[in-house]
Amino acid sequence: MRLSDIGERAAIDRMADIYGMVTLDDCAAIDDGDDLILVTSDIVNEQSHFPPGTSPWQMGWFVVAVNLSDLAGKGARPLGVLLSLGLPASIDASFLDGFADGAHACTDRYGTAVIGGDTKEMPSVALCGMAIGRMSRDAYMPRDAAEPGDLVCVTGMLGRAGAALQYLADGSDEAALHDLLHVEPRIFAGRALADTHVVHASMDISDGLAASLYQLARASRCGFAIDADKVPLASRASLEHGLYHGGDYELLFTVPPDAYDRVSEALRETGCPVSRIGEATSNRLLLRRDGATVPLEHRGYEHFSGRGKTL
Amino acid sequence: MRLSDIGERAAIDRMADIYGMVTLDDCAAIDDGDDLILVTSDIVNEQSHFPPGTSPWQMGWFVVAVNLSDLAGKGARPLGVLLSLGLPASIDASFLDGFADGAHACTDRYGTAVIGGDTKEMPSVALCGMAIGRMSRDAYMPRDAAEPGDLVCVTGMLGRAGAALQYLADGSDEAALHDLLHVEPRIFAGRALADTHVVHASMDISDGLAASLYQLARASRCGFAIDADKVPLASRASLEHGLYHGGDYELLFTVPPDAYDRVSEALRETGCPVSRIGEATSNRLLLRRDGATVPLEHRGYEHFSGRGKTL
Repeated sequence: MRLSDIGERAAIDRMADIYGMVTLDDCAAIDDGDDLILVTSDIVNEQSHFPPGTSPWQMGWFVVAVNLSDLAGKGARPLGVLLSLGLPASIDASFLDGFADGAHACTDRYGTAVIGGDTKEMPSVALCGMAIGRMSRDAYMPRDAAEPGDLVCVTGMLGRAGAALQYLADGSDEAALHDLLHVEPRIFAGRALADTHVVHASMDISDGLAASLYQLARASRCGFAIDADKVPLASRASLEHGLYHGGDYELLFTVPPDAYDRVSEALRETGCPVSRIGEATSNRLLLRRDGATVPLEHRGYEHFSGRGKTL
Repeated sequence: MRLSDIGERAAIDRMADIYGMVTLDDCAAIDDGDDLILVTSDIVNEQSHFPPGTSPWQMGWFVVAVNLSDLAGKGARPLGVLLSLGLPASIDASFLDGFADGAHACTDRYGTAVIGGDTKEMPSVALCGMAIGRMSRDAYMPRDAAEPGDLVCVTGMLGRAGAALQYLADGSDEAALHDLLHVEPRIFAGRALADTHVVHASMDISDGLAASLYQLARASRCGFAIDADKVPLASRASLEHGLYHGGDYELLFTVPPDAYDRVSEALRETGCPVSRIGEATSNRLLLRRDGATVPLEHRGYEHFSGRGKTL
């Protein structure tokens, strides 16, 4: 049995069992008095994540952004980022400058900094980011607290990354590369959401909306009914892109219906769009579309490899 | 100019400049009231770090151990470890179990746990670890506080890894593999040292004793005079191994002479041997050997690639 047979998610679950991890969330949480220290790590590589034409600057920004996005999903304030790179000996040294400039620009935009890391020669490019954050314990937004009756909400417009990948398949396109890689993690929106203290469950949707709904349902032991015509779509994006493609890094969260106005107001102050796309139920994941109700498919695209995958 | 022309250390310095890092230490330190939160990351790969015959269990233990060693150098208590793996799709899934078992054994030994991470398919094996720790701010042992007149001390016996690599060059040798990879990070000794509040400067010697002395001298703007016959050598190890080979993960630290007894007593209680090997001076790095005083060479072995290198 090879890794390719079991898949990345099963590999993570298998090791988490051995490590004795109880809950899987966007971040690990460490007690710190009335606060939590949150830590998270994402590793990316050139082949799977970066289309031809990606600049070192874009890689640096992206690695920082996807790690900050995990903090955003919980509502944390970033304290710092570590970047550990495996780089081929043959890579041009100017890569270092471009990569570091992009990473620095992203940390700077979100009020934090690269505070450490490591660099080693490796046969292929491996870019490992880690983000550390802090937040008040009572503001933490977990994955496992969605309740039947909650409204299901998403920030921003979905399908941007999926549509971009489709354009890139037809050849290089600067705008599409930007749409795919210039991720703006929802740090400010996540903190505003956490500060309302009314959000039940939250996560980022890096794996795609449908895949994320399945993860949230599993953690919260609930179901969801989603209205297809309420899923907010980016320009050029289809519903397929919005539901089943990863790479959007928006936030998915649930709130009691009577708290929605408060959440909506808090997000408006950060300039972040929000949409109600359905509600939490007691079981099953359903999609209401064109007057019919059908099962929400459990599939997504694992990062940017372009491989559709049944999850 | 390629990465291989400038080397890993220059690459790290170059990016640290762009990130705006002020001081390079074993760990990054984040303010936490009267405490510091320490974070560190090391990335390793199969080709450079693991001789043929290395088991997945040994890799898991090693990646955790080298990250914990950076916490040990500062005197911190570990709070958790993140492990992000890049693995070829063709790798056998049993690798996951062996690796996770080894990693878990090491965290368990040192009172901590693997609390998160990531796993992605990659063309070659990349194993990225990150350790988080905490300590009282006033117990922190930096790199930049060695003072002329301080005693220079090391824990344990040096050259174990260097001697092991030499044996391995002659063919597989289970005992040598163990000596090389079964790193016991000096967590308990580091905490005991920090608790004395008398240590001036400290770091782990993962890059080799001579290389580490040069790093400590640069950070503290001092020099060192080392007595060759006082460098404690592991069985089968030569002075060359003890001075110029990396991979030993012992602690190098300086204390005022009148505080040595206190430090020695604290280490004895943790079962950790300690040796005085020289003293800090105002400038230059010198080796006293066979009645002569010569410059300490600025060279070491970068991790386990077997490549001697002038630093």
